Amino acid sequence: MNVILLSGGSGRRLWPLSNDIRSKQFIKIFKGADGSYESMVQRVYRQIRSVDPDASVTVATSKAQVSALYNQLGHEIGISVEPCRRDTFPAIALAAAYLTDVRGVDPEEAVVVCPVDPYVEDDYFKALKALGEQAAKGEADLILMGIEPTYPSEKYGYIIPEDGQAVSRVLMFREKPDQETALRYLRQNALWNGGVFACRLRYALQKAHEQIDFTDYRDLFGKYHTLEKISFDYAVAEKEKSLEVMRFAGQWKDLGTWNTLTEAMQEDTVGEAILNETCTNVHVLNELNVPVLAMGLHNVVISASPEGILVSDKQQSSYIKPYVDTIDRQIMFAEKSWGSFRVLDVEEESLTIKVTLNAGYRMNYHSHRNRDEIWVVISGTGYAITDGTTRRIHPGDQIVMKAGCRHTAIAESDLMMVEVQLGREISVHDKEKWALNQ
Amino acid sequence: MNVILLSGGSGRRLWPLSNDIRSKQFIKIFKGADGSYESMVQRVYRQIRSVDPDASVTVATSKAQVSALYNQLGHEIGISVEPCRRDTFPAIALAAAYLTDVRGVDPEEAVVVCPVDPYVEDDYFKALKALGEQAAKGEADLILMGIEPTYPSEKYGYIIPEDGQAVSRVLMFREKPDQETALRYLRQNALWNGGVFACRLRYALQKAHEQIDFTDYRDLFGKYHTLEKISFDYAVAEKEKSLEVMRFAGQWKDLGTWNTLTEAMQEDTVGEAILNETCTNVHVLNELNVPVLAMGLHNVVISASPEGILVSDKQQSSYIKPYVDTIDRQIMFAEKSWGSFRVLDVEEESLTIKVTLNAGYRMNYHSHRNRDEIWVVISGTGYAITDGTTRRIHPGDQIVMKAGCRHTAIAESDLMMVEVQLGREISVHDKEKWALNQ
Repeated sequence: MNVILLSGGSGRRLWPLSNDIRSKQFIKIFKGADGSYESMVQRVYRQIRSVDPDASVTVATSKAQVSALYNQLGHEIGISVEPCRRDTFPAIALAAAYLTDVRGVDPEEAVVVCPVDPYVEDDYFKALKALGEQAAKGEADLILMGIEPTYPSEKYGYIIPEDGQAVSRVLMFREKPDQETALRYLRQNALWNGGVFACRLRYALQKAHEQIDFTDYRDLFGKYHTLEKISFDYAVAEKEKSLEVMRFAGQWKDLGTWNTLTEAMQEDTVGEAILNETCTNVHVLNELNVPVLAMGLHNVVISASPEGILVSDKQQSSYIKPYVDTIDRQIMFAEKSWGSFRVLDVEEESLTIKVTLNAGYRMNYHSHRNRDEIWVVISGTGYAITDGTTRRIHPGDQIVMKAGCRHTAIAESDLMMVEVQLGREISVHDKEKWALNQ
Repeated sequence: MNVILLSGGSGRRLWPLSNDIRSKQFIKIFKGADGSYESMVQRVYRQIRSVDPDASVTVATSKAQVSALYNQLGHEIGISVEPCRRDTFPAIALAAAYLTDVRGVDPEEAVVVCPVDPYVEDDYFKALKALGEQAAKGEADLILMGIEPTYPSEKYGYIIPEDGQAVSRVLMFREKPDQETALRYLRQNALWNGGVFACRLRYALQKAHEQIDFTDYRDLFGKYHTLEKISFDYAVAEKEKSLEVMRFAGQWKDLGTWNTLTEAMQEDTVGEAILNETCTNVHVLNELNVPVLAMGLHNVVISASPEGILVSDKQQSSYIKPYVDTIDRQIMFAEKSWGSFRVLDVEEESLTIKVTLNAGYRMNYHSHRNRDEIWVVISGTGYAITDGTTRRIHPGDQIVMKAGCRHTAIAESDLMMVEVQLGREISVHDKEKWALNQ
């Protein structure tokens, strides 16, 4: 099975656990079989692998997510990096070109496209496989997955099938209706459109070439920023005549808000938390290393991270976005391909962070114009290179880098350092990268 | 006016803002006239001074509070340091001996004794002054302040006076009654016992000598740990025949729980906080440097500090203590006479803290057996002494102290340093103090 996972944007709706550089799909909140926590994207990837160990998975996403994806999924996945965000039609076109031109996939093979963040059970992935097999048969050019509605939701688009068969032709599409209309659709065997479909790779490429003038992957990548923002549903599915829908009746949740997310949690708390016995329907997600104590609360979600603390009635939590938009802050922590960092202290003319460099990784060789930096190694071993001079480093070592000094660190074992930045204008943009001649 | 302020213990009821070394009376939550925040003890001290600029104030307290008291009130106050906690009778006996033997106060002068943490207006302090003046008259040996009840509380002890006059003889004392009994007391002109009284200093000393065998302050201080824990009410007031009560009808609040404390706050929030418009009766006290966002909550207090995060229904918050007792933690921040510290990061074999040394102060000259330390100066100037060698220090300087190295820092201007501690057994008890020969 060839799967393209569409991995979307920043997700401020799950602040403070998601931020501008960590999207919701990377938050580790689902307890895996071995007791450790996994993220939405890890859960989905594990589920795909368990249904089809040979599945070839490609994630279509922005550059900002590449590090987190490799960190969480390993290097076996393919990543189709979008130079900028352009909605699902351009993203799928680019991923299709990537699969044929970069990964060498036969255009006659079927491909299944789905979002990276549904909360589903293994039967969903069996349905994905069946969707791909249906596409391979060639009865229709495009096969959608239709999710059997559990209530007349106003949040989803609807697919109206010709009949109630497992696979049927599509009569029409309907955008988010009001509740009364939704109820009428339900009587017509209507299905939710979860943005999941399968087709032959050749079909996706053909649709891309019909609407975009490009030769190959490289060419499409180069002109990606010029493309119109348009969804695959609008650009392709809603116009397609050779179109089928396959019903899926299993559990399917869209975990876009704290309310729906906490419903999917196996336990009331993640991280250090105490709930007294008068709490009901309270969830705590605590990424800080101090305890949360909750007393006498009902239907509340508490979420704490280095970015901030949310305490919200669960229903109200759907309205979080405008409030988070007013919080304009420094990024206080981030996962990177090479490890992670966390801001420990902010003063007027200094910034103290903790840097963790994973074993075998190195930073870019770089310098800063307007700040000095000092590293104090707190665990692990490796090398520091400053202005071309290499030295081995151990816990307790200090490395001093004046403004202008080119520097990098290389982790032999997992390397943790406290980094003190000193200067009047400390900015993430003050960074020049250099080639390292070794 | 001579005032003895009784400053009590740790106050886990206001966790996470109070901890084992910062008591509730030192939390800065009351907005002063100039827009800055003051603590309970600062508020009370300012109010005493405004009613009687010449008042001589002595705080009876434990050693743990001395630094915070000098920090918050300055060095004009007297402090009677209790070697250990022994309830109010021994504390008042020691403070009375301190006033005569150390401060040279004439035993014929009146002294007013009151707790350090009531939330009151200036009229309360005028009443304290009147209480002292009544004691000076000598009509009775002991004059209690009786607070006019606002409701039949089961939380307070009651004083039943002979009549409803402003000053009257006391008929009897009654411990915390049930509500029905309290209601009956109210009809008898009964008053709450707020633990406030006045007498001549000589009287307090005499009562001390009657029950404790001691010669002077030094002697009493030396045997303090052998004394019985007993309250002044029980040891003295309830047995006294020459006893009057003076009525006080103004505002008086005992701010012992989050529920009562938040009632006294002038604003809904202290620190970075956003409440959405659907919140009602929500208070946020946030000492962290990240925002708290509260949505759709009612009758809730949120309090965040480096020690932890409390989210509680206000009524429920009275039952906090057993939950806090289960949280056995490292002290994450503290105010000291010389400045403050805050834990930034805890790893298995390292601890990173931020140390702020106030201008003109120095640390003890000390060493550690089992850990190395590294300072990185982030602001201010001063001196570092390591193994007898003095050097000037500036932002960006690193000072390395291997285990066993004797060291101190002296702040010229306010001096901030990131201190990285490295070792397998990092403990606050691993500290040896040395004499510094300069």
